[in-house]
Amino acid sequence: MAEIVYPEERLRQKIQIKDATLRNSLSEFLGTALLLFIGIGIVMQFILSGEKLNTWIQVNVGWGMAIAFSVYACSKTSGGHLNPAVSLAFVTLGRLSVKDFICYSIAQTFGAFVGTVGAFGIYYDQFIKYAGNQRTIAGPKATALCFCSFPALHVAGTALLMFFVCVIIDKRIAVPGPAHPLLFGLVVLMIGTSMGMNVGYPINPARDLGPRIFMLFLGYGSQAFTYHSFYFWIPVVAPLVGAVLAAWTYHLFIGAHIPDPKPIIVQDEAKQPLRYA
Amino acid sequence: MAEIVYPEERLRQKIQIKDATLRNSLSEFLGTALLLFIGIGIVMQFILSGEKLNTWIQVNVGWGMAIAFSVYACSKTSGGHLNPAVSLAFVTLGRLSVKDFICYSIAQTFGAFVGTVGAFGIYYDQFIKYAGNQRTIAGPKATALCFCSFPALHVAGTALLMFFVCVIIDKRIAVPGPAHPLLFGLVVLMIGTSMGMNVGYPINPARDLGPRIFMLFLGYGSQAFTYHSFYFWIPVVAPLVGAVLAAWTYHLFIGAHIPDPKPIIVQDEAKQPLRYA
Amino acid sequence: MAEIVYPEERLRQKIQIKDATLRNSLSEFLGTALLLFIGIGIVMQFILSGEKLNTWIQVNVGWGMAIAFSVYACSKTSGGHLNPAVSLAFVTLGRLSVKDFICYSIAQTFGAFVGTVGAFGIYYDQFIKYAGNQRTIAGPKATALCFCSFPALHVAGTALLMFFVCVIIDKRIAVPGPAHPLLFGLVVLMIGTSMGMNVGYPINPARDLGPRIFMLFLGYGSQAFTYHSFYFWIPVVAPLVGAVLAAWTYHLFIGAHIPDPKPIIVQDEAKQPLRYA
Amino acid sequence: MAEIVYPEERLRQKIQIKDATLRNSLSEFLGTALLLFIGIGIVMQFILSGEKLNTWIQVNVGWGMAIAFSVYACSKTSGGHLNPAVSLAFVTLGRLSVKDFICYSIAQTFGAFVGTVGAFGIYYDQFIKYAGNQRTIAGPKATALCFCSFPALHVAGTALLMFFVCVIIDKRIAVPGPAHPLLFGLVVLMIGTSMGMNVGYPINPARDLGPRIFMLFLGYGSQAFTYHSFYFWIPVVAPLVGAVLAAWTYHLFIGAHIPDPKPIIVQDEAKQPLRYA
Repeated sequence: MAEIVYPEERLRQKIQIKDATLRNSLSEFLGTALLLFIGIGIVMQFILSGEKLNTWIQVNVGWGMAIAFSVYACSKTSGGHLNPAVSLAFVTLGRLSVKDFICYSIAQTFGAFVGTVGAFGIYYDQFIKYAGNQRTIAGPKATALCFCSFPALHVAGTALLMFFVCVIIDKRIAVPGPAHPLLFGLVVLMIGTSMGMNVGYPINPARDLGPRIFMLFLGYGSQAFTYHSFYFWIPVVAPLVGAVLAAWTYHLFIGAHIPDPKPIIVQDEAKQPLRYA
Repeated sequence: MAEIVYPEERLRQKIQIKDATLRNSLSEFLGTALLLFIGIGIVMQFILSGEKLNTWIQVNVGWGMAIAFSVYACSKTSGGHLNPAVSLAFVTLGRLSVKDFICYSIAQTFGAFVGTVGAFGIYYDQFIKYAGNQRTIAGPKATALCFCSFPALHVAGTALLMFFVCVIIDKRIAVPGPAHPLLFGLVVLMIGTSMGMNVGYPINPARDLGPRIFMLFLGYGSQAFTYHSFYFWIPVVAPLVGAVLAAWTYHLFIGAHIPDPKPIIVQDEAKQPLRYA
Repeated sequence: MAEIVYPEERLRQKIQIKDATLRNSLSEFLGTALLLFIGIGIVMQFILSGEKLNTWIQVNVGWGMAIAFSVYACSKTSGGHLNPAVSLAFVTLGRLSVKDFICYSIAQTFGAFVGTVGAFGIYYDQFIKYAGNQRTIAGPKATALCFCSFPALHVAGTALLMFFVCVIIDKRIAVPGPAHPLLFGLVVLMIGTSMGMNVGYPINPARDLGPRIFMLFLGYGSQAFTYHSFYFWIPVVAPLVGAVLAAWTYHLFIGAHIPDPKPIIVQDEAKQPLRYA
Repeated sequence: MAEIVYPEERLRQKIQIKDATLRNSLSEFLGTALLLFIGIGIVMQFILSGEKLNTWIQVNVGWGMAIAFSVYACSKTSGGHLNPAVSLAFVTLGRLSVKDFICYSIAQTFGAFVGTVGAFGIYYDQFIKYAGNQRTIAGPKATALCFCSFPALHVAGTALLMFFVCVIIDKRIAVPGPAHPLLFGLVVLMIGTSMGMNVGYPINPARDLGPRIFMLFLGYGSQAFTYHSFYFWIPVVAPLVGAVLAAWTYHLFIGAHIPDPKPIIVQDEAKQPLRYA
């Protein structure tokens, strides 16, 4: 029987990228762009409506789902790190080469920039209506929080994220693959309720740096980087440290000690290899 | 052993519709009617209670679940598009004929009309209590938002919806079928938190046009169509464009590049075809 | 190898009830008692805290999860109807005898009474603190809503519930069994956001009648039954009609028309029966 | 083909703890520390922001997810009780020795203490900003609720938790293992909406005692223990009683009566043992 060849399969045969680094970096770029497009949109809807159309619970739930579905999109190419801190932790776990880490980080930061531009475009009218010509970081009508985070809880949030990422993907914990992105989203929701105190979720260097660069173009001036004693580097560096420490904390204290299942001898004629219960 | 034949199986043997287009259009009609019955109900409860009994998070969650369960209902007949923009995107993906697209769109728009009438019937007393004889689109006691959306974020919302629909149903992403409708619902929830800024979720031409036609009967006058420089056609046309673009964006940038799994040779006597890990 | 016999298995061997009607009625009793214990608790926490500790979204989510877990508890004995309207619909679908329907309904109503007594006991101090000696149905400090619902949207809510119950359990829709109770819970959450306008979820005759009887003991007087032109019988009768109509609506318009899968002939030596894809 | 040995597998080979009690106690320690680190963080964010950044729904959802993911982390070592009341109930169900119960309880209480210290460290600046030098249990700027619960609904909450834990893990109810922790989390969310009336979720002796001990170090004085007529022992003892009663209530009234499936004789050449439908 002749099988139907769908149009996207024909596209696939023509354009499929064979180079894994290129293909995965493209995914990280688009995934992080989506994440920021949605996520900055959530923050815009929150701030520009005077915290009326979105309340905090929607910021938490919205970011959680934004993570979940952006990771679903990339789950079979790059895996959907969307965060240099996560990528770095995977380098230390032997899942990613240093070269790929560098490519991913650039793609993620560039994606974050593009996603921010998109969300800004979508909310341009509302933004102008709200802020007029002001581009201030603090005070009434301050809009900097639309883009990035200011002093908050960095290492802890990222560490929690990476710790539970390691739990969820541990083969011995045995959570089915298709549930992973949704659970990552719920972890981020949870972090928002616990270590939020800041609309920006400072757990992702790319999520912070991309929009901050965009602020330079928007007329916030160098404050975007110098504000609060050059605070900007903390949400970039702290998550990197936190993620690596958390990944290994999980394996040191729990992962390494999960007992292996005992082999069950299945009596069957087909001489299949031993199966594990 | 004699198996029990349940009464709905006997019904089935008598009335089953064999024509696929008719059967699926009926499903799209009923599914969209349900979606609007529930969804307009959500908006009515929100507006007519003065935003007290429902708050924004309930509008987001309620619409998300309304999508999820309306799609579950149609998942094995038409698939549950419930939205001409989604149907059109499936035409370009070779899953739907143009004839079926036309039938679906009419069924969806008619379903949206009927669902709106139902919700209006249910909330008739509250509606009169709230609005008296006024049928106004803007100002205090304006009730037009009960029915349809006004200037907002169309292309973006529908594009996000269709993009993630393509992610979720991509066989290579491998999300189990029974989870699809629930994930669609969570996507809509997420869009509400990010691109809402408008109670009406303008991501669905049928959802917009059906209730708008009903407004003519209710005495809002031609304003329902002329308001805001004949804005009404934007939420009808924009989603169609957005959905098609988004579907192909997914396949161009991610879907086409997902590597195929390597075949695993299973050693068994039964000479089954190769299985994929 | 000697297998461990757990203590609850020894209990089981001693006390297992063999009579299906008795066993299932016991489950319906306990399940409905749990549902009301949790659900009345939710409403009490809402009303007695002046709508501060619980807001409407928690009433919706809480009732949804109360349904989900009460049904989980009964899922392998009676199935967890917890609602005479659902049981009656199952009678018309040939899944329940009339005798069992009567036993279930009595067990459900009695369970609702007992669960209400439990929740009242737990919240006794708060109740007295809030209402003093007043036992009024309307006006400030009215507490009747703690127990049952007053004029609202009956047929619609129950019909939606039963419609989606039929969707979820339809073998051809193929949602895995362990997900059913959770989805029922999300349906109830959704109904709350759409057809709530009333804290009491009047979609369940037992849920309404059990607490109403308890109100007689509490000193609300016959008002509990006479209020609003003897309104009390509407939430008892209307759901029964709505549930039956909805169940058959689903099968008439969608269920009966789901095409059967084509048999796939599996070539294997074991001569297993045909499998369906 | 040489398989890649990941770095965490090499770690595992070096440090794996073979003694089950030690390994599991370590997991209970870390899991409870995580639970309190996240959970106290949620309460801190709630109280220290003047109930602005977190509202009650976030306290409910956040604690639910904190339970879910802390249990995921321990699910394949100790199982993730994180609560002496749950551990004691498992002793009576023959799943845990008394020696292990004692070790677990100490590990849980110590973990709760350490997690509280961590959350306090993270929120130190905000705490000082909010409370200054005051360390009071009641009145404005009271912060004791950051740490533990005061008079509330103990037995009921813990009993509900343990009852549904028994439902979810009952092999005859057949919920897949990887879904258990998420469902436990939703149960806790539900309890919060129904038996909350108190920010502290007094359903866990370790969760209550650990932070209370920490209060001694913080300068609340002996009030932490003497307040409200030496109330402190109630949330320690009541959950233990409630959990044991609830576990057996489930088995007495429902679990013991779930009928066993009838064996299905599968005709295959491989002479596999009987399978159950």
